[in-house]
Amino acid sequence: LKAELLQKTGSFKPRGVLNRLQLLTPEERERGVITFSAGNHAQAVAWAASAAGIRATVVMPAQAPEGKVAAAQGYGAEVILHEHFVDYVLRLRDERGLTLVHPFDDPGIIAGAGTVGLEVLADLPDLATLVVGIGGGGLISGMAVAVRTQRPAVRIIGVEPLGANAMFRSLAVGHPVRLDTLNTIADGLAPPYAGEHTYAIVRELVDEVLVIPDEEILEGMRFLFERCKLVAEPAGAAATGALLAGRVRAADGPLVAVVSGGNIDVARMKSLL
Amino acid sequence: LKAELLQKTGSFKPRGVLNRLQLLTPEERERGVITFSAGNHAQAVAWAASAAGIRATVVMPAQAPEGKVAAAQGYGAEVILHEHFVDYVLRLRDERGLTLVHPFDDPGIIAGAGTVGLEVLADLPDLATLVVGIGGGGLISGMAVAVRTQRPAVRIIGVEPLGANAMFRSLAVGHPVRLDTLNTIADGLAPPYAGEHTYAIVRELVDEVLVIPDEEILEGMRFLFERCKLVAEPAGAAATGALLAGRVRAADGPLVAVVSGGNIDVARMKSLL
Repeated sequence: LKAELLQKTGSFKPRGVLNRLQLLTPEERERGVITFSAGNHAQAVAWAASAAGIRATVVMPAQAPEGKVAAAQGYGAEVILHEHFVDYVLRLRDERGLTLVHPFDDPGIIAGAGTVGLEVLADLPDLATLVVGIGGGGLISGMAVAVRTQRPAVRIIGVEPLGANAMFRSLAVGHPVRLDTLNTIADGLAPPYAGEHTYAIVRELVDEVLVIPDEEILEGMRFLFERCKLVAEPAGAAATGALLAGRVRAADGPLVAVVSGGNIDVARMKSLL
Repeated sequence: LKAELLQKTGSFKPRGVLNRLQLLTPEERERGVITFSAGNHAQAVAWAASAAGIRATVVMPAQAPEGKVAAAQGYGAEVILHEHFVDYVLRLRDERGLTLVHPFDDPGIIAGAGTVGLEVLADLPDLATLVVGIGGGGLISGMAVAVRTQRPAVRIIGVEPLGANAMFRSLAVGHPVRLDTLNTIADGLAPPYAGEHTYAIVRELVDEVLVIPDEEILEGMRFLFERCKLVAEPAGAAATGALLAGRVRAADGPLVAVVSGGNIDVARMKSLL
């Protein structure tokens, strides 16, 4: 298990964001960045921008949980709540001359997430199988590029929730699709569309995308809790859940599942498990 | 935080047990070992003995939770449930010619637990303060010996539950005492007496033993869960809880609190938090 939930801000997200911020021009740094997110990406941008001395505006949905709003504010970001938060962020970006730090569909973000793959190979040079949850696809895209470049034969498997299977459907129809409805406990894996960049990389480099029901994600959470002492959020437990359910056809040799995030409070964990 | 809950069997306990097993004579190895424990030590003996190819008998209280019995059996130990389990284990030891692997009051067990201290110093050569929960006192004794030998000036603080403060009371009266009643959620810190060896070491090498109420242990569990993504059992969260409550007078410089174990199932965590 690659325990990315132990990263600063509780998920792998700061990797991509820190890399993206390093790619800003001096003028862009000066003006600041903006992003939209209801979850881990918001915390990551707020924290990383603050660490880099860059002003960050984070637009969150109007119904965002108070705890997540407070966390982003605590890291020093300006948080704006808005009903149509994605549209609003684009308008604000243009009005204020900010640079958008996209949650996943950006080569800089993808490359930063790929450092998880480099670390896995450093730990396990003979890696045979890699299992990664798919939301927008940034993590699996970055890891697939990093791992395939060095070890072309590694089997790479993505895992999506049945109720938020944008990548699976995109692969089926041959282009990135947008979902009309989302229905999963794994909010971290539930953007309403597959990215252009991430779709192209997944199509080329990922061997298989599995789709699993929420019950299997819950089994993954329970296993990580009781056997591994790790508090995974639903998105973070999808890869483990797919393994436990016997869905993963693994290659001979070491297998790694990424536990991508652990941002869940006690109350939500109690209501889910 | 030194995350000992991530060790095999979910606590620091295998360190002492593996060391103790290495000290057995060939004849003792051949005949096998016995122990008594309702908790983490039972799993550790069952696992370590199995790994070392030694037969293990584990005597547990008659009301031991099914899950813990099954875990010890799963690791390959013979589990016997008995009402007066400590007395019974001594009788069985003599009848069968087995060697007792004590949960804490044994120099071999203490020395093995001390390896936690060596690792802390390897990570933080300028360690200034160490905070460790006290049950029987094996962990803090081993760590204190290991750390004091190399860094005499480190401040070492023990933490006991208010309802199971055998070490605190022993220090107050000047000899190891036995408690008539135990009343704490931290079952892992609640043996009914302080050990002879551990008492002597704590008296000599530990700067202060703090006593904290269960509410502060719960705050430690909640913090470790939500902020550190770690599932600590109550015993494992005592040192963190004491820190959060502001009870620890720390020396200038790096501080380490040990998260000693994480063996708690979802149902118990839900009922506690």
